[in-house]
Amino acid sequence: MSDDTLSLAQILIARRSLTPADDGCQEILIERLEKLGFRIEKMRFGEVDNLWARRGDTAPVLCLAGHTDVVPTGPLEQWDSDPFTPTIRDGKLYGRGAADMKSSLAAFITAIEAFVAQHANHQGSIALLITSDEEGIAVDGTVKVVEALKARGELLDYCIVGEPTCTDTLGDTIKNGRRGSLSGNLTIKGIQGHIAYPHLAKNPIHLAAPAIAELAQTEWDQGNEYFPPTTWHISNIHGGTGATNVIPGTLNLLFNFRFSTASTVESLQNRVYEILGKHGLDYDLQWELSGKPFLTPKAELADAMHAAIVEVTGIEPQLSTSGGTSDGRFIADICAQVIEFGPRNATIHKLNEHVAVDDLEKLSRIYQLIMENLLIDKTVVADSDTDGFWDKLKKYFSFG
Amino acid sequence: MSDDTLSLAQILIARRSLTPADDGCQEILIERLEKLGFRIEKMRFGEVDNLWARRGDTAPVLCLAGHTDVVPTGPLEQWDSDPFTPTIRDGKLYGRGAADMKSSLAAFITAIEAFVAQHANHQGSIALLITSDEEGIAVDGTVKVVEALKARGELLDYCIVGEPTCTDTLGDTIKNGRRGSLSGNLTIKGIQGHIAYPHLAKNPIHLAAPAIAELAQTEWDQGNEYFPPTTWHISNIHGGTGATNVIPGTLNLLFNFRFSTASTVESLQNRVYEILGKHGLDYDLQWELSGKPFLTPKAELADAMHAAIVEVTGIEPQLSTSGGTSDGRFIADICAQVIEFGPRNATIHKLNEHVAVDDLEKLSRIYQLIMENLLIDKTVVADSDTDGFWDKLKKYFSFG
Repeated sequence: MSDDTLSLAQILIARRSLTPADDGCQEILIERLEKLGFRIEKMRFGEVDNLWARRGDTAPVLCLAGHTDVVPTGPLEQWDSDPFTPTIRDGKLYGRGAADMKSSLAAFITAIEAFVAQHANHQGSIALLITSDEEGIAVDGTVKVVEALKARGELLDYCIVGEPTCTDTLGDTIKNGRRGSLSGNLTIKGIQGHIAYPHLAKNPIHLAAPAIAELAQTEWDQGNEYFPPTTWHISNIHGGTGATNVIPGTLNLLFNFRFSTASTVESLQNRVYEILGKHGLDYDLQWELSGKPFLTPKAELADAMHAAIVEVTGIEPQLSTSGGTSDGRFIADICAQVIEFGPRNATIHKLNEHVAVDDLEKLSRIYQLIMENLLIDKTVVADSDTDGFWDKLKKYFSFG
Repeated sequence: MSDDTLSLAQILIARRSLTPADDGCQEILIERLEKLGFRIEKMRFGEVDNLWARRGDTAPVLCLAGHTDVVPTGPLEQWDSDPFTPTIRDGKLYGRGAADMKSSLAAFITAIEAFVAQHANHQGSIALLITSDEEGIAVDGTVKVVEALKARGELLDYCIVGEPTCTDTLGDTIKNGRRGSLSGNLTIKGIQGHIAYPHLAKNPIHLAAPAIAELAQTEWDQGNEYFPPTTWHISNIHGGTGATNVIPGTLNLLFNFRFSTASTVESLQNRVYEILGKHGLDYDLQWELSGKPFLTPKAELADAMHAAIVEVTGIEPQLSTSGGTSDGRFIADICAQVIEFGPRNATIHKLNEHVAVDDLEKLSRIYQLIMENLLIDKTVVADSDTDGFWDKLKKYFSFG
């Protein structure tokens, strides 16, 4: 039992599931879920394998969500061991996906197995939503599964996304929301001309500079209890013909908002228009909304997560909404309470990605306790305890 | 006589002297100059043919300066006739270099021939300084000839650069100076980071914007009697990794001053440093001085030019210092009075470059009159008049 999560994580890491490839990971999960009585639904969209699995027909539905795909390895010669050969050194399990997020997938499975073994007749439903395109363009992954579920009215009550959320120690961080991401592609128009005859030209770089300065200094909101203030940043700026004696005709900027629930897409767009207009700029602006912000206030799921983490690790977790986007943004569309919790994220997307071996069973145990907290009727808690008692007894005499 | 300048211009245009190639143009000039008693000095530097030719040993030295090279043709199919096949249509001579500046070279030669024919014993010296690298990088052209002359103490008193200076009508514009050109390559340093964690990064685009805005709005000087105010423009700006979720680590800018004699290189540099420092920027800045400004106040040469233009065209020329740089910037180093005058510049560097055929003999006549104004002793003006009289008489009886 104690090495079960480690074994499964090793099996999954050995699969070369470079995004958007699944490379058989989902079949491994399916084999174990079928034994537990899950109904399996393979949802392939485009090139992407997705898995929807559910045990039980009633509410509440507790979904565990994640992805089998991993990011590229980077230079192989800079890894201390092959990224697809899971390797344990000094109490750490190395391999691409060790932290992001094959260990979480393994912990999902072993947690469900342990829970179902004890509570075969749990309340509500347990579900898994697994994609192989979270690290890529993410258009045929979770978002499509969510659309399919929504279309048939299959909604979720709770969702735990197993993304690596912890900073220094397993248990220190729960993400209970993510900021939204709104991008703009802005072209400032001027008039091209020879730099020796500037009165015949209009320099779009000069025209834009005061507007950029104002946008950069704008306080978009002050955030709120859960979110830091909205930020605005230019990622790319390009203007110029290459020639040093020509004033260019246009200036192109790509910018991005990471925005809290204290602002809306419309409020941010309107303020950008207002500033560009105030500076009298002639421009084109194309918007792209990558994800709306979502937020799960403290409620049953956050409480259950908190209690489970304290019980297993002894650590008081902090709620956070920092970091990039995740598939939580899509799931929030059909689920009021979405929370992310997984292992330490210090090495994700890097060389020598790893997870502490000791954290694997703790993670599994945390997920298991959340299920117990949410899917066991507290009014008949004696049953549950009895199950636990018999379970322990069977193990003690090695009946199991 | 009346088609002599046209004929020579046609011969020169037929040469494919794409910068920095001379393609035999200078040999054509040399052949005619040698007949007039010029001392010929071929000065080849690197790939560039240069010609220094002088008639006379004494001061004042009146130099006619120009270039045999031309800019590329652009798409041949968009020319109405082949750019290297001089073609006359509707009173215009078409061809690459027709205006910039093979017609001026032809007019130089026929003007000198006419002048020497009348005033074989003129005062002072007539010189020609011809390069084949004015349109290119201009490092082995006029600047090198000037260095060689300076090294041996051979200074000039007057120089006429035959660049096309006129706007609407032959005679409307004399350039009596050019602004300087000072370029900067500026790199603003920030700290690269993920756009979702902006507190860990420093966005150089945001940091630079207020400084750019201030630089763009700065009044560098008010110009002076001869020069418009100094201008500062960014020609190129680039920042960004291409990724839309990364704040770049650096921002690169190329900028250029076109500056009057009301500012100095040092005063402009110091004000840029001051503004960058005021905004607390961390930066690298490389300067390149392409040319200092030069200015020829109204004196003998400008007066002679003015009088010649009025006599030939009936037009009152305007003094101007506008436009890009020219080789005048180099010659000013060894010559106190440098003035530019040549045909209309409306079609230079364009498709279907041309010059009005009627302007060719006028241009030759203007250059000739300037020589008469500057190199004929006015105290023995009767001689000159007598020459003129006999000349006219010979022509009248077709003796010539």
